[in-house]
Amino acid sequence: MMHTLEVDLGDRSYPIYIGAGLLEQQGLFAPHVAGRTVMVCTNTTVGPLYLERILGTLQLAGAKAAHSVVLPDGETYKDWPTLQRIFDALLTQHCDRKTVIVALGGGVIGDMAGFAAATYMRGVPFIQVPTTLLSQVDSSVGGKTGINHPAGKNMIGAFYQPQAVVADIATLNTLPDRELSCGLAEIIKHGAIADTDYLLQVEQWMPRLLARDAEALALVVKRSCEIKADVVSKDEREGGLRAILNFGHTFGHAIEAGMGYGQWLHGEAVGCGMVIAAQLCLRMGRLSADEAARLKKIVIEAKLPAIPPALGVDRFLELMAHDKKNDAGAIKYVLLSGLGKASTSPADEALVRQTLTDLGAGA
Amino acid sequence: MMHTLEVDLGDRSYPIYIGAGLLEQQGLFAPHVAGRTVMVCTNTTVGPLYLERILGTLQLAGAKAAHSVVLPDGETYKDWPTLQRIFDALLTQHCDRKTVIVALGGGVIGDMAGFAAATYMRGVPFIQVPTTLLSQVDSSVGGKTGINHPAGKNMIGAFYQPQAVVADIATLNTLPDRELSCGLAEIIKHGAIADTDYLLQVEQWMPRLLARDAEALALVVKRSCEIKADVVSKDEREGGLRAILNFGHTFGHAIEAGMGYGQWLHGEAVGCGMVIAAQLCLRMGRLSADEAARLKKIVIEAKLPAIPPALGVDRFLELMAHDKKNDAGAIKYVLLSGLGKASTSPADEALVRQTLTDLGAGA
Repeated sequence: MMHTLEVDLGDRSYPIYIGAGLLEQQGLFAPHVAGRTVMVCTNTTVGPLYLERILGTLQLAGAKAAHSVVLPDGETYKDWPTLQRIFDALLTQHCDRKTVIVALGGGVIGDMAGFAAATYMRGVPFIQVPTTLLSQVDSSVGGKTGINHPAGKNMIGAFYQPQAVVADIATLNTLPDRELSCGLAEIIKHGAIADTDYLLQVEQWMPRLLARDAEALALVVKRSCEIKADVVSKDEREGGLRAILNFGHTFGHAIEAGMGYGQWLHGEAVGCGMVIAAQLCLRMGRLSADEAARLKKIVIEAKLPAIPPALGVDRFLELMAHDKKNDAGAIKYVLLSGLGKASTSPADEALVRQTLTDLGAGA
Repeated sequence: MMHTLEVDLGDRSYPIYIGAGLLEQQGLFAPHVAGRTVMVCTNTTVGPLYLERILGTLQLAGAKAAHSVVLPDGETYKDWPTLQRIFDALLTQHCDRKTVIVALGGGVIGDMAGFAAATYMRGVPFIQVPTTLLSQVDSSVGGKTGINHPAGKNMIGAFYQPQAVVADIATLNTLPDRELSCGLAEIIKHGAIADTDYLLQVEQWMPRLLARDAEALALVVKRSCEIKADVVSKDEREGGLRAILNFGHTFGHAIEAGMGYGQWLHGEAVGCGMVIAAQLCLRMGRLSADEAARLKKIVIEAKLPAIPPALGVDRFLELMAHDKKNDAGAIKYVLLSGLGKASTSPADEALVRQTLTDLGAGA
């Protein structure tokens, strides 16, 4: 059982394949790798689990050669020195402009391998094979690639689309619980910003999702990708609409940066960020108390943190002011006007401060 | 007196302005910088000559703020640590996605500032202000940006188009003779690959060009940009036709890499590379002895080297095999079939070896 979704971006359109056991399906890879050299980028966590398997599949798919580079695992390594290791591997293997880069791992691997693909010899093809729920529903759609800078997350990067995304649901069986919850954060977000029926379904299916029921997971991955692909295809380079996908992210990025990358996982920060944003919407009269409480309850049921770290309100605002989504200085928030409807807007700083203080973010 | 040329790339089209004294013309900059923060990237050679002047023009053009970052000069600094200094400057000044990057300098500054623009927050606008003849006729058209890797030139980069190119011919008055000749190498190349009338004109005007006659320089910059823009607009991402612009570059890059970047200037290596390529074409029966001799004579009259360094033939071939223009292993040469007509083709290795040996490239 496989779902296929086409991301419609004109001549940069690509398919997303979703199902259990796709890592073994050479037919999905053959059109992209037959006769070509392939470089699989993975990390020390995912590599031991799936690298041999995908290299075998790529050989059967007709790759001329299948090399690999295994990077250290974690957001802290989403930096230039680690990216450099991909370039070194490509150059050592004399990879040319027809070489295909395959990203085998979560969002960090996808972002780095994608940025390497965007910039090696000014661009080579790449295929995403996301192995975390978060990357399956989030970073595999949208073409965002990049690395962090000591002064900010994803400050250096490019928009670059893959040739295909192969989301093997079976790889989620080896995912730590904490990372499963991170994927659920983005899934909840998709419902919250765009589709109340979907939010209800996620709410009802939460026990099945936490138990890694393959059918339920495949369906939410598909629906989440659909929602994201729909937004992205209308705004590939993040001019406007696409910003709604950042619901929970302005607060979330501040938490990640303030705690030091890697302390809070991205999805955890986004989960908590949505709770903060919902409280802000409540204060602004955009969400009812019931709606805000319901969103918080879903976040908690997904085993995500709902209480922000006590970074101090000034520090929180300072970190948010650095977010690259800002437009000429003013912090841009993604706010809900009722569940299922999102838009970007500035917000009164006093309200933001009060919200953060009441939630315990004060020092 | 100003020439304007439009590079036709659909929604990535942009104008090239060519003339003497354009650095003072605020009206050329205003549409792109009014109300925005600007970061001028330059180097320690060009900065003292023109930085204050352009910052003044940008202020008059309505820039909200005009910052600058001054990098060390030279191809050896076209690397990650130097690029990082641009990112550091952008982040220190809290530059956002609307910040405009201005490249003030030669090809190295244009490539690095352009790559910074392509990748800072996944892309910000930029304006090229080329101050060398080489960058005015070559790197300001085509959208190639990037940095070198210890294992190869321009190995990391992106295709990214500027908003506008402002080529001030007056800046050529401060250009060292050796760099003027480097620009002439690309100008000769444009005639050799695409336009024999133009080649004849360059040949006849050589004394005026070497004497920095502004009218002659403006006209060749314009015609060279036209030829390059014509080729690039038909093949933006270097799928096929665009490769003819690499005439002389396969041999030239080997010379640059083999001697260590910075020993031979790019244009010098290309000038010599064209002589080698013409000799190879002669051996292949594609050029007459007269045509090959004429091209060599023009290269020498432009005060460019015509004798390759004695790197050794094996080393030469090894360096060429690493060139990123190669397609799945085989070295691709740009060859002439008579002056004015170029195409890419493999070549018999024995003939290449014989050509290099006879020209003195053997160890």
